[in-house]
Amino acid sequence: MAHVLGQNQYGKAETRVVRVRRDTARHEIKDLNVSVALSGDLDDVHLTGSNANCLPTDTTKNTVYAFAKEHGIESAEAFGIHLARHFVDDNEPIRRARIRIEEYAWDRIPTQDDAGPGHSFVRSGGEVRTAEIGYDGSSFQVITGLSELTVLNSTDSEFWGYIKDKYTTLKEAYDRILATQVTARWKHSWSGAETQPPWEQSYAEVRRHLLEAFAQTYSYSLQQTLYAMGTRVLNNRAEVDEVRLELPNKHHFLVDLEPFGLKNENEVYYAADRPYGLIEGTVHREGVTPVIPVA
Amino acid sequence: MAHVLGQNQYGKAETRVVRVRRDTARHEIKDLNVSVALSGDLDDVHLTGSNANCLPTDTTKNTVYAFAKEHGIESAEAFGIHLARHFVDDNEPIRRARIRIEEYAWDRIPTQDDAGPGHSFVRSGGEVRTAEIGYDGSSFQVITGLSELTVLNSTDSEFWGYIKDKYTTLKEAYDRILATQVTARWKHSWSGAETQPPWEQSYAEVRRHLLEAFAQTYSYSLQQTLYAMGTRVLNNRAEVDEVRLELPNKHHFLVDLEPFGLKNENEVYYAADRPYGLIEGTVHREGVTPVIPVA
Amino acid sequence: MAHVLGQNQYGKAETRVVRVRRDTARHEIKDLNVSVALSGDLDDVHLTGSNANCLPTDTTKNTVYAFAKEHGIESAEAFGIHLARHFVDDNEPIRRARIRIEEYAWDRIPTQDDAGPGHSFVRSGGEVRTAEIGYDGSSFQVITGLSELTVLNSTDSEFWGYIKDKYTTLKEAYDRILATQVTARWKHSWSGAETQPPWEQSYAEVRRHLLEAFAQTYSYSLQQTLYAMGTRVLNNRAEVDEVRLELPNKHHFLVDLEPFGLKNENEVYYAADRPYGLIEGTVHREGVTPVIPVA
Amino acid sequence: MAHVLGQNQYGKAETRVVRVRRDTARHEIKDLNVSVALSGDLDDVHLTGSNANCLPTDTTKNTVYAFAKEHGIESAEAFGIHLARHFVDDNEPIRRARIRIEEYAWDRIPTQDDAGPGHSFVRSGGEVRTAEIGYDGSSFQVITGLSELTVLNSTDSEFWGYIKDKYTTLKEAYDRILATQVTARWKHSWSGAETQPPWEQSYAEVRRHLLEAFAQTYSYSLQQTLYAMGTRVLNNRAEVDEVRLELPNKHHFLVDLEPFGLKNENEVYYAADRPYGLIEGTVHREGVTPVIPVA
Repeated sequence: MAHVLGQNQYGKAETRVVRVRRDTARHEIKDLNVSVALSGDLDDVHLTGSNANCLPTDTTKNTVYAFAKEHGIESAEAFGIHLARHFVDDNEPIRRARIRIEEYAWDRIPTQDDAGPGHSFVRSGGEVRTAEIGYDGSSFQVITGLSELTVLNSTDSEFWGYIKDKYTTLKEAYDRILATQVTARWKHSWSGAETQPPWEQSYAEVRRHLLEAFAQTYSYSLQQTLYAMGTRVLNNRAEVDEVRLELPNKHHFLVDLEPFGLKNENEVYYAADRPYGLIEGTVHREGVTPVIPVA
Repeated sequence: MAHVLGQNQYGKAETRVVRVRRDTARHEIKDLNVSVALSGDLDDVHLTGSNANCLPTDTTKNTVYAFAKEHGIESAEAFGIHLARHFVDDNEPIRRARIRIEEYAWDRIPTQDDAGPGHSFVRSGGEVRTAEIGYDGSSFQVITGLSELTVLNSTDSEFWGYIKDKYTTLKEAYDRILATQVTARWKHSWSGAETQPPWEQSYAEVRRHLLEAFAQTYSYSLQQTLYAMGTRVLNNRAEVDEVRLELPNKHHFLVDLEPFGLKNENEVYYAADRPYGLIEGTVHREGVTPVIPVA
Repeated sequence: MAHVLGQNQYGKAETRVVRVRRDTARHEIKDLNVSVALSGDLDDVHLTGSNANCLPTDTTKNTVYAFAKEHGIESAEAFGIHLARHFVDDNEPIRRARIRIEEYAWDRIPTQDDAGPGHSFVRSGGEVRTAEIGYDGSSFQVITGLSELTVLNSTDSEFWGYIKDKYTTLKEAYDRILATQVTARWKHSWSGAETQPPWEQSYAEVRRHLLEAFAQTYSYSLQQTLYAMGTRVLNNRAEVDEVRLELPNKHHFLVDLEPFGLKNENEVYYAADRPYGLIEGTVHREGVTPVIPVA
Repeated sequence: MAHVLGQNQYGKAETRVVRVRRDTARHEIKDLNVSVALSGDLDDVHLTGSNANCLPTDTTKNTVYAFAKEHGIESAEAFGIHLARHFVDDNEPIRRARIRIEEYAWDRIPTQDDAGPGHSFVRSGGEVRTAEIGYDGSSFQVITGLSELTVLNSTDSEFWGYIKDKYTTLKEAYDRILATQVTARWKHSWSGAETQPPWEQSYAEVRRHLLEAFAQTYSYSLQQTLYAMGTRVLNNRAEVDEVRLELPNKHHFLVDLEPFGLKNENEVYYAADRPYGLIEGTVHREGVTPVIPVA
């Protein structure tokens, strides 16, 4: 009994590449985790066991390393564009490529004697930068993002006026902590025709606007904060036409200190792990068809 | 400058509920992790800060616990259907609900004196069972699945005849270990009209067919094994009309022992972590439109 | 200004080795994660940068693979003893070796046609088996163990009669769930002189006694259960002279359903993550000096 | 058959407390994860099921929250000292307390309008600060530390001149990347008699010296770097008398690009996960008996 092979893709996931630029004594490093997914004329691989159209995942890994030398890594996006173009344009059976990249940032270790050789680094921690590059042989789709950016407002957050039903026990809050671990993805309007945007600068600016919008929004719900963050990016960065945010509500519950004869004046909180509210949403420009998928 | 609010959803994620049936001295337990995502008429929540249409995530959590008492937990799927129906049918602004559930299995602790009271359990380990129930007020969509099911064939796997390009270094293999950690999701054709399928039995049978297909397929690629696993389920389980598999290739590399004057006759392997091949694909019945999203 | 170099050790951690026995069509596999720590005459390595006494960690990794071929892997303990003896006896500067091993169990995939070739396996999940072998050139110390063994009693557990102070709010419990994730380590009396114990059988029996003691103890505290588990092992396994247990109290809190007009008759629980009680303790034979370190 | 109850301890682990200081519009936050372990006259709890001497772990959790209000959280160390003193001095059966604390750092979110209210924070990422406070009723032992501090030198590291045996395949390296994820613990000489050291400033300075020593040491082995880091702290911080470091060698392997007709001039590296070298060691002042345990 024959069935239909639907969407399929394959490639090497999580190739870890570190690229050092040593042109001068002041080295530069780029630290990426690259995942390749290819699709195309691959029915035979699945149905007959013929691998004639299969570019091995091992080869996609090798290509990541070779391209790090041949092209360098100017930015995660530019590097992914090189890879995606190669896999599709240079392999007839491959029709689509999706390159996902995580980038880990490093700072220089400051030393008192800063005449030093500039080869010492400390991982920045904080958020992971992400990039997803899609290419189908004619146009590109670039979605930049970040994850694990944890933020907290210790006031200027309320939550009240919601539906009450028979399962409601939550008390309305007029001054609460609002904390979340931001996962954001934003699509660039660039699709391959013109000069590429300045990816590094664009990332830094979007990140800044996300943080500022979170900090400056007086919030009546995490949904409202989400919308404010998305619109702030669209208002300030012309190269972006869609933003999607996933904001887990990292609950900080006020501890009841009355049994101990103490009054908790919004000072002592229990930071909970699970369960957590999860608020997700897309904000996009009018006329743009949103493409960033739901997680 | 106004922008468009696109797809959005919210709810309480990862509510951990354990339900004990104690009707007899031989207790039964169900151990679930339940995540609720609701969407509907929620623009005002995002745009104006009015929460009049917002059912708090705290309430969705309470509902999980209350329903565990009111309805019991016969299966993850049946429990999710109760929840989804309630959120949409009983809250006017809520138009869609998606319930995701992880289930952790427990075995009884065997004792030499098995006249014991039957209240002692040990976590089974192995795979996590998953269920995703969607409901839009008129029809249901139920996707059952599993993750973290790790399997290995120590022979009957080859890989050769693939594309060679300038970045190819992989040697062809005529007898290799094939190992993967299965993530599978399969959609039931049931959409709400008739009697529900026997979820527990269906799960056990699909799991068995996945394992058997993996074990009994002489493999020329993990893609071929994937297709064999998907079709095996469709051939044997009429209630399922689409299967999606994500199969990381957990590489086991033969260690070169020649420098030590030893011959490695497919006996000693290095189990690698990263990078790994990742093979993903859908198999579905003819005439069915596949809906399980790409991860 | 000179300071003193105190305890130091080094080696390759987490070498992942899978050994297949293919003598017959019914293969056997052993799946280990091996960590080597060596100490000895290594002051110069730290103080002067001379590596003359340093056996590279890369070599300790190679040795693990070579020994998997040369000696096979009969058990984690026997394999670790081979390694420890080699590192100390065959390298003059190395005076002590500590080999830590994690073992992951695999079951055979059952197929309806069990005349099959016996080369298909599924990871058992559940606990990880551990072994730690110490050797100083004259005697061995073997500590076997397990971790991630999660168990639950749905009744036969109470907790009351404890100290009450000004910070006490806990209500006494006369029927509660008792659940824990067992980490256990037990020292064998064997130190190298005689024939080695039957490691595989000993492990299976100790595991069984731990489970049975947990199941059969009517508990007034997790401490009491801990002591019962330790003594059960000592009473039944002459080869063991010390047991140490780490038992996190995986709290299952009864959900208050009264606000919803429901009565929770010990049926619906919230499984909490953090914080958790952590109960640790050693039980040993009289006259034996306990050596298993506090975690 | 009676056996001996050896070392035992218990308490609530991982109580997550966030303390906000809101005296002015410029809030301050402290974010801790506190684990309590108590020991003392607890034999009956284990042997007879009497809990008369047992201070419940729930109460130790409550005490953490109450003390966050009553004493504030000036530093992890000062807070742990308050807790340890209370548990031992105010509970007759409790003879020893060990408080372990992880601290997560937060930075202020910079905004263009820095006249803002100062209530917005972003998690710093990078290392976790640790503190362990021991108290036996007469003296304190304070071990401060950090973990997850990842550092990398892209040159000035060699490794050669080591032992070669029949299992050696490693090639000598004259210019390699040296990277590690530092776990450090250092003991303060303070034991309770006099004024407490300035914990916050001391931490910042020790961290700075660890980083600078890593950056400025031309390394012939990670062991040598370890010793340099430990002595740097002892040379510069009189309040510290013992340092222990655990330094996993986060291998960055040079990728062989020759098959692709490319020359890798120390530019493209594969960042490996497992296995990894693990280098551990203590450096202490003469005359001091080291107490920081081996991990």
